[in-house]
Amino acid sequence: MTTLTIQSFQNKYDVNIGTGLRHEISDLLKSNYAKVFIITDSNVAPFYLKEVISAFGEDTAVSSEIVPAGEGSKSMACYSSLLDRCLELQLDRHSLIVALGGGMVGDLAGFVASTYLRGVDFLQMPTTILAHDSSVGGKVAINHHKGKNLIGSFYSPVQVIYDTEVIGTLSNQEIRSGFGEVVKHALLSDHKWFQRLMDTTLTEVNQEELVKHLTSGIKVKAEVVEADERETGLRKHLNLGHTLAHALEAEFGYGEITHGEAVAIGILFAMKISEQTIGADLPFQSYTRWLRHNNYPLHLVSQIDPERTVERMKWDKKTVGNAIHFVLLTQIGAPTVTALTDKKLIQIMTDFVKDEGGTFD
Amino acid sequence: MTTLTIQSFQNKYDVNIGTGLRHEISDLLKSNYAKVFIITDSNVAPFYLKEVISAFGEDTAVSSEIVPAGEGSKSMACYSSLLDRCLELQLDRHSLIVALGGGMVGDLAGFVASTYLRGVDFLQMPTTILAHDSSVGGKVAINHHKGKNLIGSFYSPVQVIYDTEVIGTLSNQEIRSGFGEVVKHALLSDHKWFQRLMDTTLTEVNQEELVKHLTSGIKVKAEVVEADERETGLRKHLNLGHTLAHALEAEFGYGEITHGEAVAIGILFAMKISEQTIGADLPFQSYTRWLRHNNYPLHLVSQIDPERTVERMKWDKKTVGNAIHFVLLTQIGAPTVTALTDKKLIQIMTDFVKDEGGTFD
Ligand SMILES: NC(=O)c1ccc[n+]([C@@H]2O[C@H](COP(=O)([O-])OP(=O)(O)OC[C@H]3O[C@@H](n4cnc5c(N)ncnc54)[C@H](O)[C@@H]3O)[C@@H](O)[C@H]2O)c1
Ligand SMILES: NC(=O)c1ccc[n+]([C@@H]2O[C@H](COP(=O)([O-])OP(=O)(O)OC[C@H]3O[C@@H](n4cnc5c(N)ncnc54)[C@H](O)[C@@H]3O)[C@@H](O)[C@H]2O)c1
Ligand SMILES: [Zn+2]
Ligand SMILES: [Zn+2]
Repeated sequence: MTTLTIQSFQNKYDVNIGTGLRHEISDLLKSNYAKVFIITDSNVAPFYLKEVISAFGEDTAVSSEIVPAGEGSKSMACYSSLLDRCLELQLDRHSLIVALGGGMVGDLAGFVASTYLRGVDFLQMPTTILAHDSSVGGKVAINHHKGKNLIGSFYSPVQVIYDTEVIGTLSNQEIRSGFGEVVKHALLSDHKWFQRLMDTTLTEVNQEELVKHLTSGIKVKAEVVEADERETGLRKHLNLGHTLAHALEAEFGYGEITHGEAVAIGILFAMKISEQTIGADLPFQSYTRWLRHNNYPLHLVSQIDPERTVERMKWDKKTVGNAIHFVLLTQIGAPTVTALTDKKLIQIMTDFVKDEGGTFD
Repeated sequence: MTTLTIQSFQNKYDVNIGTGLRHEISDLLKSNYAKVFIITDSNVAPFYLKEVISAFGEDTAVSSEIVPAGEGSKSMACYSSLLDRCLELQLDRHSLIVALGGGMVGDLAGFVASTYLRGVDFLQMPTTILAHDSSVGGKVAINHHKGKNLIGSFYSPVQVIYDTEVIGTLSNQEIRSGFGEVVKHALLSDHKWFQRLMDTTLTEVNQEELVKHLTSGIKVKAEVVEADERETGLRKHLNLGHTLAHALEAEFGYGEITHGEAVAIGILFAMKISEQTIGADLPFQSYTRWLRHNNYPLHLVSQIDPERTVERMKWDKKTVGNAIHFVLLTQIGAPTVTALTDKKLIQIMTDFVKDEGGTFD
């Protein structure tokens, strides 16, 4: 087991990463809780809910709620009914809310925990690769039909218990998705790690390698958010690949392309812009090969409509005024933020779609 | 104008208190905002909304929403529709949400501000006396049918602009209500101030005295919350009078007795317990006379059912386990927290109702 300690502006918490940790919860937990409420989803529950419930001690009353898997549960309706459930269970300020699932469950359960009785203890038990990113950094949220994550707060967990064994039941698409954020963290920090990833076939990663990748990813995320928890400066770098990603997700529909797959393609586009605007020399070709080798949905690139996509980017909460801010790379490990006009962006995107769209098919 | 500076765990903010400040908003505000969204209620709007809107500068786009006056608006439905409105208005992270109203509007608008885009700037413009208490300290919340303030967060305003002139349109009942919390702050801190209050007829307080009382009240509240923003220790003292108050509000119905009136009676009961359990020597008689002189609803005391009331207290989020925690006074300015068994509490309350209920009628 690897343990990282993270300092947020609210508290200090441990992230435990290792194989089989779901069976060791009562040993790992730093406090005792009389009442625990586990929130999970309909895909995760059949595999792991029973095991996690029984991993709590005998003196703990454990309840659970299974929400439907998928982004649809990150809704005001689901949030509100989970709060009703907390009250029915008479959870008090000394109770614990557990998120057992991927980023969806983490964001939803975290928002419930942050606002129930103005905040109760919250434990993250990530079950996806992508959740290495979402379980650290304190952002919790639900969606609105006008956009993703528009309602939420900053709220850190008291602990993160990350059992990498549960990754075994994840679909290949979700593995790809999670590695989209892993690649992002590598590009933000470390050339060697990025090279190692480029030599990796995602379906063949073993437990030991997985622990290493996730630990490195969490370290990068933690360093950035520790330096800037409220997203005024540095934290923006974590948006590498995300400006296009959000537009792709909206364009092709949640479900068609996962968040991390969209990020992986967004990164490719960010590399292209970096080359064309600031003259950066980046491994565009080897990264493209790796994406193709691991079945990222590159065929969607040829379907991008640049004008509409740029319009979408403009109603993204990361934009300020009319210029669109992009995270670029001057080289691996050296991100920078640049404002681009719509016009320039449409031009580069048009080239990107024309030059690369065909080769990907 | 008096200005206090308050340090919360999130930020540092000014509280400006004075006569006519609603006309000076654009001078007083520390930042410029392109978009401002004012949330107010149906009693306050006819008096002050227009004036406040026009007090913002020309470059500011000001929108507003008027919610129905009364606790009913502190609901999940109203919260959710205000968030919809924020999105319709395309408020972004650089926008300002203003609470123009009493504690109800402050709590509701504050909860909206704390969770819209994970938190946008929030200005409190208190319009009741009671709101001297609620506008400082960072607690924001909505109600649930299972109880008050069960859903919310800790979120500080960027500034508080408190125009004491608007108190002029407040009903006598609301003046009484607000002075319930003023008395509480006096009892927690300062014998002389309490004496001054005991010589005061509430309907005759002039602007100068009002500014003094509100400033002193905010100082007490601020000192306590600065020392303990997350209510683990000291902050409990602010619950003086509140354990009974919440039960009275629930028993007699919101509307029949206001929060501050209930607190004023709760304080009387806390004095009684303090005398009977720790032998404190408190101005029970002169305080009773003052309550009667100012028409606090003391007649309700004879209608208290001790057993049911104690049951209600037990499902109050301030209770831990089975003992009920009470804030008592060893003397004026010296609060202490004591746990009491149900049995003892019912006994003292029965005496209180019998001994005092009659004399109040
Ligand atoms: N808070 C943050 O900082 C942050 C950062 C990135 C993403 N997010 C959010 O995270 C969400 C995406 O995260 P995600 O990709 O983990 O999504 P997810 O939680 O929806 O999980 C993806 C799918 O995998 C299933 N699943 C999860 N664990 C499994 C397991 N061990 N075995 C089998 N199936 C499993 C889920 O049921 C779901 O169908 C989005 O809502 C996004 O907004 C938040
Ligand atoms: N956040 C906190 O720390 C905290 C502390 C104490 C109370 N509260 C909350 O505050 C609320 C009670 O506050 P309140 O007593 O100010 O209630 P309120 O906001 O409901 O105001 C009381 C009444 O006075 C009216 N009113 C307000 N200003 C007026 C004015 N200037 N002229 C004429 N009418 C006016 C209102 O419309 C309402 O009918 C409760 O919801 C309570 O839970 C919060
Ligand atoms: Zn992401
Ligand atoms: Zn109060």
